[in-house]
Amino acid sequence: MKYPTGIKQQTKKVTNYGNRGMSLEEDINITNAYYREQDIAVIYKKPTPITITKVDYPNRKEAVIKEAYFKTPSTTDYNGIYRGKYIDFEAKETKQNRFPLSNIHAHQITHMKQIIRHGGIGFFIIRFTQKNETYLLEGKTLFEFIERETRKSIPYTYIQEKGYRISEKLNPRIDYLTWIDKICFEGGKS
Amino acid sequence: MKYPTGIKQQTKKVTNYGNRGMSLEEDINITNAYYREQDIAVIYKKPTPITITKVDYPNRKEAVIKEAYFKTPSTTDYNGIYRGKYIDFEAKETKQNRFPLSNIHAHQITHMKQIIRHGGIGFFIIRFTQKNETYLLEGKTLFEFIERETRKSIPYTYIQEKGYRISEKLNPRIDYLTWIDKICFEGGKS
Repeated sequence: MKYPTGIKQQTKKVTNYGNRGMSLEEDINITNAYYREQDIAVIYKKPTPITITKVDYPNRKEAVIKEAYFKTPSTTDYNGIYRGKYIDFEAKETKQNRFPLSNIHAHQITHMKQIIRHGGIGFFIIRFTQKNETYLLEGKTLFEFIERETRKSIPYTYIQEKGYRISEKLNPRIDYLTWIDKICFEGGKS
Repeated sequence: MKYPTGIKQQTKKVTNYGNRGMSLEEDINITNAYYREQDIAVIYKKPTPITITKVDYPNRKEAVIKEAYFKTPSTTDYNGIYRGKYIDFEAKETKQNRFPLSNIHAHQITHMKQIIRHGGIGFFIIRFTQKNETYLLEGKTLFEFIERETRKSIPYTYIQEKGYRISEKLNPRIDYLTWIDKICFEGGKS
C-alpha cells in the first residue's frame, strides 16, 4: 500500500511515540521511576552482576574497570516493595510466537519459589515483540507449566490464557501493578 | 610482653578463626547464605552499580567488559524478604571512634525513608573495626540524629546506646535477624 509521504511519516511518528523501538527493560525502568515519583511503589532493577578482574585505581575518585565479565544472575532482575509487600520479578522479550524457557535460569526459578514461599509476590513480565503484546505471568503459573509439561517453550496461547495482558499507555508506560492489585489484593482476574 | 613462639602462634590462629581479617561485607554475605540455606530469609547483596562504556563482544558467551566506571548507588546494598516483610539495609565499617555520615549517600537516605514509609524494615549495620564491634541501627534512629544534630559524625556512644550490638558467632556469623525479631516482631530492646 502506498500513502502520500506526509501521512506515512505521521503514522510512523505516532507509532514511535507509543512503544516500538523501546525495549521492555526501558519501559519497565520508566514505569518504575513513575511509581517512585508518585510514591506508589519502590521498585528497582538490580545492577548487572559482573566479576571485576582488573581495575586501574590511580586515586579514590578515578577508578576505571579495565577487565570484567558478565556473571550468570542468581536472582531475578527487579525487586522492591508495594503496598507493604515484597515484589520480585523477571522481564523477558521474545521475537518468537512462544516463550523459550531457556530465557530463565534454573537459579532464578529456585529464587522465585523461595520468595513466594516466604510471602513475597513473584511474577514474570513477558513481551512478544512481533505482536507488541506484554503479559504478566504469575510465578506459580510458570512453575505449574514446567512441572506438567516437557516442552521447552511456553506457547503464546497458554500465556494469553493464563497471563494478564498489560496494556501500554503513556504514563505509566506498562502499568503492571494494577494487575498485582487485582491478583494479590482483590483476588483474581476479571 | 613476650610469649614463647608456640603460644603466640596459637593465639593468632584462634583470633583469625573468629573474625579479624574478614570484612563486614564478607561476614554479611556468609550470614545471608546461611539464612538462605536454612530457609530463614532470602536476602542478597545487590551487584555493584557500574556504567559500561566498552565491551569486547566476539560472540554471545565471551563478552569481556574493557572499560567501565563505578556509579554512585541510588539505593542501599542489601535487600530481601524475611517473615513476609521487605528488608532493606546498608552496611558500613569505620576505623574511627565515630561514624562519619559521609559514608551514607543522600540518595540512600531518601531511599530508606521511602522504604520505611511503604512498610518495609530499613536499618544500618555499622562496624567499628578498631573495637571489632558491630551494631544494628534502625533507619529512624539515624534519621532522628541527622534532623536534630549538625554534627557530621554519629558518636560511638550514641550508637552504643541507641543501637543493638550484634554478637559475632560461628554460624550465622553476624545474626542480625534475631535483633529484627526483637525490634519489629516482638516490640523493642531488652
